[in-house]
Formats: sequence, C-alpha cells, structure tokens
Amino acid sequence: MTEISFDPYHRDCPSRSVLDRLADRWTVLVVGALDDGPLRFSQLAHRVDGVSQKMLTQTVRGLERDGLVTRTVHAEVPPRVEYALTDAGRAALEPLRALERWTLEHAAEVLAAREAYDAGR
Amino acid sequence: MTEISFDPYHRDCPSRSVLDRLADRWTVLVVGALDDGPLRFSQLAHRVDGVSQKMLTQTVRGLERDGLVTRTVHAEVPPRVEYALTDAGRAALEPLRALERWTLEHAAEVLAAREAYDAGR
Repeated sequence: MTEISFDPYHRDCPSRSVLDRLADRWTVLVVGALDDGPLRFSQLAHRVDGVSQKMLTQTVRGLERDGLVTRTVHAEVPPRVEYALTDAGRAALEPLRALERWTLEHAAEVLAAREAYDAGR
Repeated sequence: MTEISFDPYHRDCPSRSVLDRLADRWTVLVVGALDDGPLRFSQLAHRVDGVSQKMLTQTVRGLERDGLVTRTVHAEVPPRVEYALTDAGRAALEPLRALERWTLEHAAEVLAAREAYDAGR
C-alpha cells in the first residue's frame, strides 16, 4: 500500500491546488448555502447575493470537478438541474463554517484596523 | 450601543472583504508558519516554499493592514524586521488549520475526482 503524504508548504505539492478550492470566498458561500439541501442554479444565485452568473458557473463547476458538489439533471420539462453536497463537500462545511464564524466575530475589528492603517499611510 | 450585524451573503456587506483575507492560500500558509513564533521576511519566504517575493510582500502587508500580523523593526545594524501574529491572527489559526486539515485529508480524493471529471469531458 502506498501512502502519499501531502504538504502544502512545498511548492510542488498538488495539495496547494486543493487548498485553493476551499480557500475561496465563493466556495465558502456556495457550500454554506447548500448546507440546507439541494438548490437549483437560480436559487443559489439568489442566496449568494450579487454573485455574477459567470462566477457562480465557474464556482459550481470547480466544486463539481473536485467532487464536492453533484449536479443532477431531473428529466422534467423543462429539465430541473440541482446542485447538492457530496460527502467530501459535507465534510468541508465544518472548516468553512469556522472561516465564516471568524469573519463575523472579527469583521468590525479588521475593518477598524484597515481604516487605521490607511489613515497612517 | 450600536450592534453592527454582518452577513457575507449580502452583496454589500463589508464582511465579504474580511472573508477574502482568510479565504486565501497564502494567508493559510503564512499565518500557519507564524504559529511557531515571529519570523523575518526571508524566513517566511523559505518556509512558504515557492512563494514569489511580490506575493509574499502583498500577503504580509494585507495581513498587517487587517490587524492579523504585526511588523516590528528592531533597531540593529542592519535593521531586523520581524512579523508576528496579533491576537486576531492567533484566533484565525484554528479555522485556517481546519482548512489545512481538510485539504490533507481529502487531497487524494479531490485529485482523483478532478482526473475522472477531466477524463469524462
């Protein structure tokens, strides 16, 4: 059995590109939105307020490609396309929620720090 | 007392830009590297293997601006500049470590999913 060991601190480690998938604003919001259950594209677009169609398409395609989200086409007229979390996507909820929590808890502090920094320039 | 409520699901909420600070590959690696204690720029560059000088400069400056990292110039000849985590930066370690953990645990699975997806195109 081969055990592959990943280390994102090494420049050539492919885990960096995996880290990029998670460490992304739109991943945080899209995966978080799918926590309540499958959604159609238009529902996702509504939930992730202000995301461009292009960016949302790119995000769900990337999540599908990386196995975090499934895309299911229901044979109806018109066809209904739904996005849902896979097990790996569901496992990502916890770290992504932790990011979101830190953001909400520290947003005021960070924005004040930013303002002070810019004023001191 | 005014309670400001943030919601990154709203398009105009400034918390989105705060989320962007954390949801970033280089933030994960730089903040993680500073967990062991203050580091000089060259030490950071060595630890975060392969990061360009420009990207590292941009990352530490952003982290300093947002109050996650301090930059201290020690009056020596030549002057010694060190970067260290603030309390807010230290509080970010937990969510960032959670991201890193998910990445290591799911990297093989994600890379396999990616390959299968690309083969099916």
